[in-house]
Amino acid sequence: MTTDSKARANGPRSLLRKIVDAHLAEGTAETGRPIALRVDQTLMQDANGTLVMLALEAMGIERSALPLGVQYVDHNLLQADHRNADDHRFLRSAAARFGLILAPPGTGISHVVHMAHFGRPGAVLLGGDSHTPAAGALGMLGIGAGGLDLALAMAGAPHPMTMPSVRGVRVTGRLPPWVGAKDVALEMLRRHGVAGGRGAVWEWFGPGLDDLSVWDRHVIANMGTETGAVATLFPADDAVRDFLTARGRANDAAPLSADAGARYDDVQDLDLSTLEPLVATPSSPGNVVPVSRVAGAAVAQVYLGSSANPGWADAAIVAEVVAGGRAADGVSLDVNPASRDILRDLVATGHLAPLIEAGARLHQVGCNGCIGMGQAPASGRRSLRTVPRNFPGRSGTVEDAVYLSGPQVAAASALRGAITDPRTLDRAPPRPRPPARPAHDPAQFVHPPADPPPLDKGPSITAMPVFDPLPDDLDLPLRLRLGDDVSTDEILPGGAGVLPWRSNPERLSAFTFRDLAPDYAAAGNGDHAILAGANYGQGSSREHAAMTPRMLGLRVVLADTIAGTHARNLVNFGVLPLSLDGDARDAVAAAGRLRLRGCRDAVARGAVPALCLPDGTPVHADWALPLSDRQTAFLLAGGCISWARAASAMGRTTA
Amino acid sequence: MTTDSKARANGPRSLLRKIVDAHLAEGTAETGRPIALRVDQTLMQDANGTLVMLALEAMGIERSALPLGVQYVDHNLLQADHRNADDHRFLRSAAARFGLILAPPGTGISHVVHMAHFGRPGAVLLGGDSHTPAAGALGMLGIGAGGLDLALAMAGAPHPMTMPSVRGVRVTGRLPPWVGAKDVALEMLRRHGVAGGRGAVWEWFGPGLDDLSVWDRHVIANMGTETGAVATLFPADDAVRDFLTARGRANDAAPLSADAGARYDDVQDLDLSTLEPLVATPSSPGNVVPVSRVAGAAVAQVYLGSSANPGWADAAIVAEVVAGGRAADGVSLDVNPASRDILRDLVATGHLAPLIEAGARLHQVGCNGCIGMGQAPASGRRSLRTVPRNFPGRSGTVEDAVYLSGPQVAAASALRGAITDPRTLDRAPPRPRPPARPAHDPAQFVHPPADPPPLDKGPSITAMPVFDPLPDDLDLPLRLRLGDDVSTDEILPGGAGVLPWRSNPERLSAFTFRDLAPDYAAAGNGDHAILAGANYGQGSSREHAAMTPRMLGLRVVLADTIAGTHARNLVNFGVLPLSLDGDARDAVAAAGRLRLRGCRDAVARGAVPALCLPDGTPVHADWALPLSDRQTAFLLAGGCISWARAASAMGRTTA
Repeated sequence: MTTDSKARANGPRSLLRKIVDAHLAEGTAETGRPIALRVDQTLMQDANGTLVMLALEAMGIERSALPLGVQYVDHNLLQADHRNADDHRFLRSAAARFGLILAPPGTGISHVVHMAHFGRPGAVLLGGDSHTPAAGALGMLGIGAGGLDLALAMAGAPHPMTMPSVRGVRVTGRLPPWVGAKDVALEMLRRHGVAGGRGAVWEWFGPGLDDLSVWDRHVIANMGTETGAVATLFPADDAVRDFLTARGRANDAAPLSADAGARYDDVQDLDLSTLEPLVATPSSPGNVVPVSRVAGAAVAQVYLGSSANPGWADAAIVAEVVAGGRAADGVSLDVNPASRDILRDLVATGHLAPLIEAGARLHQVGCNGCIGMGQAPASGRRSLRTVPRNFPGRSGTVEDAVYLSGPQVAAASALRGAITDPRTLDRAPPRPRPPARPAHDPAQFVHPPADPPPLDKGPSITAMPVFDPLPDDLDLPLRLRLGDDVSTDEILPGGAGVLPWRSNPERLSAFTFRDLAPDYAAAGNGDHAILAGANYGQGSSREHAAMTPRMLGLRVVLADTIAGTHARNLVNFGVLPLSLDGDARDAVAAAGRLRLRGCRDAVARGAVPALCLPDGTPVHADWALPLSDRQTAFLLAGGCISWARAASAMGRTTA
Repeated sequence: MTTDSKARANGPRSLLRKIVDAHLAEGTAETGRPIALRVDQTLMQDANGTLVMLALEAMGIERSALPLGVQYVDHNLLQADHRNADDHRFLRSAAARFGLILAPPGTGISHVVHMAHFGRPGAVLLGGDSHTPAAGALGMLGIGAGGLDLALAMAGAPHPMTMPSVRGVRVTGRLPPWVGAKDVALEMLRRHGVAGGRGAVWEWFGPGLDDLSVWDRHVIANMGTETGAVATLFPADDAVRDFLTARGRANDAAPLSADAGARYDDVQDLDLSTLEPLVATPSSPGNVVPVSRVAGAAVAQVYLGSSANPGWADAAIVAEVVAGGRAADGVSLDVNPASRDILRDLVATGHLAPLIEAGARLHQVGCNGCIGMGQAPASGRRSLRTVPRNFPGRSGTVEDAVYLSGPQVAAASALRGAITDPRTLDRAPPRPRPPARPAHDPAQFVHPPADPPPLDKGPSITAMPVFDPLPDDLDLPLRLRLGDDVSTDEILPGGAGVLPWRSNPERLSAFTFRDLAPDYAAAGNGDHAILAGANYGQGSSREHAAMTPRMLGLRVVLADTIAGTHARNLVNFGVLPLSLDGDARDAVAAAGRLRLRGCRDAVARGAVPALCLPDGTPVHADWALPLSDRQTAFLLAGGCISWARAASAMGRTTA
């Protein structure tokens, strides 16, 4: 029996199950079981792309084994000194060397450009960015991963993960005037919070899809990440076919959807017609309230852009609302086009002009302020943004007050200078009609040459650290005690002071826990553990948030739960990710130290090493994620770089 | 006899002389003599505007005494954290408090916006930026000054200066194809170098003006600063009338020109038809060569923008050249529109689209990378820019390799990926036709309210230092020995790490001489002197370059010559600016110390204090600038803040 017929024997399949069946390399596709998937495409952005490239170099890889990999440059575009421009040159040379396509600075946000140019229904995309699931808008399984996961995938290894649950969202109805896709995404966050999607793939279906464009679905799939979900999937229906056909990609537009009667772990209904404009208040995308609850709060900035509201329509909606008007005095209306193609469309359809005329500041194409690279708000003033996240400090301002909304609320608020329910404007709701022939320029990309060049390293670009193997015994002080929902932004901040050092691990490590625990990095690199609450390492997939604590001596993370991507990143750097129950947590917190004995033997067997307090009291802990054999090998070797160096020397990485 | 009839009695007058006669408050309008002019308008940008506002606060000023002052926000727009946005809010509140107009971030580069909206033939504009002379394109006398000069002017004091020489430039002929205004400006630098205009105003006249648009004249007047000139003046002719009329400002378009037969200190001829495309090579705008001399040198960046090539046509020329083509692989084509009005025009005339389609990165409106705020080039790679300056490190990259050219050379070089003589392109020369009705939006500005608000100071904004009076005796070690042409960029760098601290003098001072003498700032704030060669303090008028060395103990600058604006800035902060001849210079350098005795008595008499070496050998020195009575009062008081605090308390600043 072939894999496919085996699958059919299981009955009608979800879209996720179809994609998994077609890519399953290891394991059994049952919820919660370890699997490994064959990867079709990789997507790197620059904030961790330099780490991927340094990892490939350190691993001794010659050329990516995958059909397609694209290196984007969208996160750090400020170029305040030579380092950033040097990183861009380094990425250019590394893409050429490792057989990847380069999207140079100015092409646009990875998820946006990738969907339009390379997205393909039914494919598996592994991306070095937590919003990679945006690709689900096309019926593509987009999964966020760490840079080392990407390096391993490009070395030919299937991607290890836990088989997600499949949670159906049956969508019906039509969006009311002034309500948009961002409100749908925020409704999911209102229902499920920032951890409610953990371990799951949201799978959307139903007649309401007819009212959601492919860019609308991008918004929803992108923001699915904020619920903690592994991915989000939409069917590849007529809208997807039209989207790809309009871009000269009809050949990639194979229809794909769940079978009728497919089984889901659960199904919820979402009637678009019942939605209203929503806002997430500081400092979490999970703090969702109706806009009426916060209406009237003065704002000093209205920020449009990011992968969360990237489409032509997201800017055009605002343009139509503000046309002939003007941003209120004292409001900085910041417009960040998501891609060069979309900027071209905004010019061509006449929607850029009214934005500028209304007083907008037009910024360069890219992620920009969404990840703290510019446009930080003023102290003590509210910023309303169409971005996906408002974690503390992510804007670049430590004590920020960032609210999230869709473009309808943003436009109304820009006009009024205060958070405004757009339904209270005395205007017709915007209904921009997208261009029939959208701009789509494949000549923007740089394809790798047959003859790869050497790596081009500027003076600040160093090499990956290689860590020692796991010792048998560890005696660890507890250097930090943290609460719930600590994000990777809080473990290692982004922003203009930090990102320029992304290719220099030593310098980067000095920023670890900068805002939560300013003394952490200065305490040296002695072996230690940290203790955290639930959902540790949520948010951005930035791998440096695992690497730099390890460089500072982190050996063990003890937490109630650890967010999936971050837990894998910890393993990749040889840090033991353990979960504790509440009693054990209190005991460890009180003792301030813990001992681990017989680590190597235990880990080799897949078991948690024996933990105890200084007085010998044993502590029960579990792995915070199911470990594959390869992951235990990583932990023993001191991380996957150490492991892969040996393996690639023996030609084993693609095994 | 009235002042005017007195002047007429002197015979036919230059344009400079007419403006000076109409504004003379103190002194005699003879070349080299101290004068003081009544100021009509002030222009502040943000990089030193915060200092102006802190100075007004420290001086106890209530409201500007002048008819017009405009605070621009164009230099530091990156907002990587709260400080910059806080500065913008501070400037907003300070403009309101002191009765000034605010041009919020996104309005554009001060010189460009000011000319279009507020420039007026025959008026005197004092600007806190060295490129203020660009206003000369309209027949307005624009003079760069320090922030404290501006504060004093807004307190009602006439502006003290030395009566410049008037040097005529008789322009004839028409520009050949592919040659533009920037080449005219570079030709002046080729002839005169970066100090050849010192003490002078360039006054342009002749039939060749018919081939130079008002924006072309802006380019030439702007770059006149690079020759060290005090200002540049063009007549207010029909072109100026048409320029203002197209912007609804016919009432401001009074014709103004030199009298026939006006006397000049010298006159040179410039035949436009003999010019060719020119390039300034690193690291001075004075290193001018024909483009053919450097053609073929690979570039990694082509940068368009700044006040040196700001006009609609400067971008449109490039758009027409690259239309249908594409920037060469590996070239970052960075486009920085100079103002929102000009960006609107580029959209409206269809010239923005071909730039973007050719692969340009469109950046926000403003000065941006011209002053190291973004777009720094990669290490070891050439950057070709249409900006006014290529001083070392100004781009943000310490070891930069910045070339300067006009848009014609820039466009050709972007296409070829190497510095290219545009005449070798197989294309018709660009001849863009400007819009008949250019965008011109006065509603961008924020006018001061009747009821001024309190100053809005974010957490990083502190107060002006107030320095002690000049002591009688000084015994000074020589902390630095410098060469010729040290620019204010080298005294206090700009760039993204520095500018955010512009409102926090203590933090700012740590960057003093960062690149030339990294240990200087760490050596504490003990009294000391420094020794320099010719043209010390050339370039940007940034006043912080006088303030922060004073905070670190600088009491005396000994130099062959000191650039005019910087010398005045030193006096404003109570630093003695002295010039030495070569022999004295060598003796001081060898001794490493010097003594000053009887400082207060000498300065009170306008004399240089008695200087000697540690062994008692006297050293002859002169003031590096002619000192007015008020300036000697500043030196005695410890700078003009100390002086003005006392004076304003007694109601004397407007005396």
